[in-house]
Amino acid sequence: MDETRIELIPIGRVDTADGQGPFRLQIEEAYRPALQGLGSCTHAIVLWWADQSDEGDLVVELPYAPGVKSGVFANRSEARPNPIAITTCFLLNVDEDTGTVDLAWIDAFDGTPVLDIKPYLPMSDRVMDAQYPEWLEGFPESMEDAAAFFSDPANVEKFS
Amino acid sequence: MDETRIELIPIGRVDTADGQGPFRLQIEEAYRPALQGLGSCTHAIVLWWADQSDEGDLVVELPYAPGVKSGVFANRSEARPNPIAITTCFLLNVDEDTGTVDLAWIDAFDGTPVLDIKPYLPMSDRVMDAQYPEWLEGFPESMEDAAAFFSDPANVEKFS
Repeated sequence: MDETRIELIPIGRVDTADGQGPFRLQIEEAYRPALQGLGSCTHAIVLWWADQSDEGDLVVELPYAPGVKSGVFANRSEARPNPIAITTCFLLNVDEDTGTVDLAWIDAFDGTPVLDIKPYLPMSDRVMDAQYPEWLEGFPESMEDAAAFFSDPANVEKFS
Repeated sequence: MDETRIELIPIGRVDTADGQGPFRLQIEEAYRPALQGLGSCTHAIVLWWADQSDEGDLVVELPYAPGVKSGVFANRSEARPNPIAITTCFLLNVDEDTGTVDLAWIDAFDGTPVLDIKPYLPMSDRVMDAQYPEWLEGFPESMEDAAAFFSDPANVEKFS
């Protein structure tokens, strides 16, 4: 068993106005200089600490695929050994002075600790030919497609 | 200042055979059930702890863009407030029994602690229309393009 322990400290918090939006990251003053240049990106990968998810099993039944069991390293459940979630977000505005990063949307609860922000770079993050588990067949093929897909409440229902 | 502290424990280690390859993740026995189903994916996002990177400034000069300064939240430097790196990897083989996840490549040193593995899902991870900082113009437009690009040593030199 690996006994190395790693300690992190949040760089800010998610603010979703109780899930209604607007959606934003509020970055602590000490870390705001690190935002320099982020405004030239349209998308960022936000790492956040899923502190409001319950501890779960290593193998789970998927709510959107009844009867299918999957290890948590094969799905995106927030209940995982180290509950770090990543969300690729569309950036609306970055203000280095106030430490606000305005997002089109993020799937994190209000008050969630933010651990890191990275620019989305096609050369390392865009895979053109990716196969994925069969229970996700029929789901959108890109983030842009997903925005249209999930604007239909029936599809939101299907995936939650 | 946010005083919440977060503790993580590695789920395994990176094994690169001293950087020469083959490249693999060796997952601790306790976490191996979580690999179930990962073999049906071609790509996974590996989260790792950059424990061999020096602590750095929040704003850095980019080695591949002399004179350009960028906040670390706008670049992928490993020296960042919480040095969690993410690498999208091509999966060669997943063995749940032995806990080995064979990869085409990973940009982590031998022995690096692994924090998490997530399946690469186009609906959340593939952005078709992403703008990025101008100093990355001319770089590959996808992971597949990057594989060809970086097979030329001159391009490796340019980016390191």
